[in-house]
Amino acid sequence: MLNVAVMGCGTVGSGVVEILLGHVESIARKAGDEIRVKYILDLRELPAQWEDRHITDFSVIEQDPEVDIVVETMGGVGAALEFTRRALLAGKSVVTSNKEVVAAHGCELNRIAKEKGVCYLFEASVGGGIPIIRPLSQCLAANEILELRGILNGTTNYILTRMIRAGLSFEEALAEAQEKGYAERDPSADILGHDACRKICILSDIAFGRHISPEQVPAEGITGVTLADVDYAGAAGKKIKLLGRAVRQADGRICACVAPHLVDQADPLAGVEDVFNAIAVRGDSIGEVMFYGRGAGKLPTASAVVADVIDIASHQGHRKAMSWDEGGDDVVCSGDVLKSRWYVRGEGDLSAALGCVQSLTRADAAPAESACITEEEMTRSEAEKKLTGVKVLSLIRVLD
Amino acid sequence: MLNVAVMGCGTVGSGVVEILLGHVESIARKAGDEIRVKYILDLRELPAQWEDRHITDFSVIEQDPEVDIVVETMGGVGAALEFTRRALLAGKSVVTSNKEVVAAHGCELNRIAKEKGVCYLFEASVGGGIPIIRPLSQCLAANEILELRGILNGTTNYILTRMIRAGLSFEEALAEAQEKGYAERDPSADILGHDACRKICILSDIAFGRHISPEQVPAEGITGVTLADVDYAGAAGKKIKLLGRAVRQADGRICACVAPHLVDQADPLAGVEDVFNAIAVRGDSIGEVMFYGRGAGKLPTASAVVADVIDIASHQGHRKAMSWDEGGDDVVCSGDVLKSRWYVRGEGDLSAALGCVQSLTRADAAPAESACITEEEMTRSEAEKKLTGVKVLSLIRVLD
Repeated sequence: MLNVAVMGCGTVGSGVVEILLGHVESIARKAGDEIRVKYILDLRELPAQWEDRHITDFSVIEQDPEVDIVVETMGGVGAALEFTRRALLAGKSVVTSNKEVVAAHGCELNRIAKEKGVCYLFEASVGGGIPIIRPLSQCLAANEILELRGILNGTTNYILTRMIRAGLSFEEALAEAQEKGYAERDPSADILGHDACRKICILSDIAFGRHISPEQVPAEGITGVTLADVDYAGAAGKKIKLLGRAVRQADGRICACVAPHLVDQADPLAGVEDVFNAIAVRGDSIGEVMFYGRGAGKLPTASAVVADVIDIASHQGHRKAMSWDEGGDDVVCSGDVLKSRWYVRGEGDLSAALGCVQSLTRADAAPAESACITEEEMTRSEAEKKLTGVKVLSLIRVLD
Repeated sequence: MLNVAVMGCGTVGSGVVEILLGHVESIARKAGDEIRVKYILDLRELPAQWEDRHITDFSVIEQDPEVDIVVETMGGVGAALEFTRRALLAGKSVVTSNKEVVAAHGCELNRIAKEKGVCYLFEASVGGGIPIIRPLSQCLAANEILELRGILNGTTNYILTRMIRAGLSFEEALAEAQEKGYAERDPSADILGHDACRKICILSDIAFGRHISPEQVPAEGITGVTLADVDYAGAAGKKIKLLGRAVRQADGRICACVAPHLVDQADPLAGVEDVFNAIAVRGDSIGEVMFYGRGAGKLPTASAVVADVIDIASHQGHRKAMSWDEGGDDVVCSGDVLKSRWYVRGEGDLSAALGCVQSLTRADAAPAESACITEEEMTRSEAEKKLTGVKVLSLIRVLD
């Protein structure tokens, strides 16, 4: 028998408890051992049927030698980080869905886990229930990973989908997402790209083997995307998607960014709608593979947490540790090295500034407005330099 | 140091050798140990630089206690099966891309591996390089799997794509696929659905935990699909795709089949073109996830084989065995329990026979020809009964 303590019984945590209690037999069969939920740590009240497991003091978990696995579904980096460290140091494996902690402190926590001979797993931290961490670290292990790109945030993908399909403005689509519970009351982590940024960092850590901090990765959200841009993109056969990207350069450094992109409608990523997520991985042997599914939600995310619990149980003490090396300024390079075509919306004669362009039109265009896609690939600073003196309203990368 | 013997140095086998010899350092880092290609077993000549590893007698591998892992990329079920059995019995782990052996004998080979404390892994047997076996068995372990459906054969998907996009007939598209090396000279295993059948059986074994034999699964290929059907499907906003499906029934039995389906253009599977494969998995917690990529080819498939080698090396002796229980007549149920809407092409008044239908039209229709999609969902035998006396030219399931 293995004992699990769940810390944080919010949306994901309560889903973990429900799955562990609701599938006892099939989980025991897969794990090779019975898995018991011994404690649920939360300051809030719990449903009556879980009350006998309810604790409010972390040290109970820390000091109970029977607890083998701690599930951290608290969120945030304060207590969640402290309790994770202390649980690992106490020789307990930790499973988490907390992307903020993994992105900022994964390297250190992996090291502690390795020293203590326990596991620190976080399949649920990226892509909700979509299997991506394990496929990337194990199934694609024979590849040098060349590029990652993904729709990593369901909230912004929902907002963009509604702008594209229903013609809602950004503000209207955001309000609808909040009503439906897809966006939080303070949506800034989603709409400013910070959530996607944490996720591309975690994927990069695994894919490239060195720590990349969210602070090293420029993140641009979707607050600047207008219906005019959506229309022009549509006229070019493209959709606007918020992508997290990480591209390995010839010198081995990683160029990572989060930004809206114009994605061709024939690209599999363009078909990823609503709150769905997708992650495309390009490797030197495999070519491109893509993983697609619900990137958030109670049970999808909880099922990824429970899969990690089962994995630890079934390999008792012998699961190979996940790890990557410390980061540094030499790991990443400026987002500006990434050349691409650009979509530009502005006032006046854009082709005079940019040279060869594909001009775009739309109904209801403002009189002075024009828009185009450059034919030449260039860095952002090259594009900005060419556009000196032009009134630029939007400047968005084109994914080729 | 771990020693690997590669049996069969054809397309995939030579790819395995290339990757293992070409990425020595990065593989050693990931595996936690150096991996050496000690033997290459093949009756054919090998490239000169591999000649010092060349053997033609399997017993060399069997009797060499230094060989830890045997890669079987021979194909077929004769010698491949015999050598796999003997390698496992000699205490060596085996990694394979051979779907025919896994589909028919996986249950027995897993059991031998377990008894001997070694591994039998086969990530490359389904979906080429697409990670699917490990995600299904590990990442989705917290789910009851409800349904699998996939485009599992790249050759037929290429043929259908060319029929749809370029208006080629089946015969023309097949000839083109053969020219490009996507179809073999004897294409029957692909175009009759047998290859997809083996793959849906392997996925079902893992997802549902009991052996399902290809003989228990009705397989229909694409030889009956005509350009007329492609046109009518297009008129209904659908594409014809060859799908392998396995659906868990309320009584726990599995209904599996391989057959062409009309797939709505909004379905992610409809966007899977050319030689690409995709596998959609529906679980009770996760909802639907999809895995997409190149389902065949030398390096993609070889990279999946090498990932299994790395997995075995990094868990030396402690990797949890994959297994499923023996099958039987109680595991599967007749494909006829599966209700769906149907696309029918025939002569005469189809709506008189079928009741409410969505009538379809196309340019160049033959004078007596008509086509429709039923509104009612029904089993195949119910549809056939209703169509008694009607001249039916095509009867294809609609995926809803």
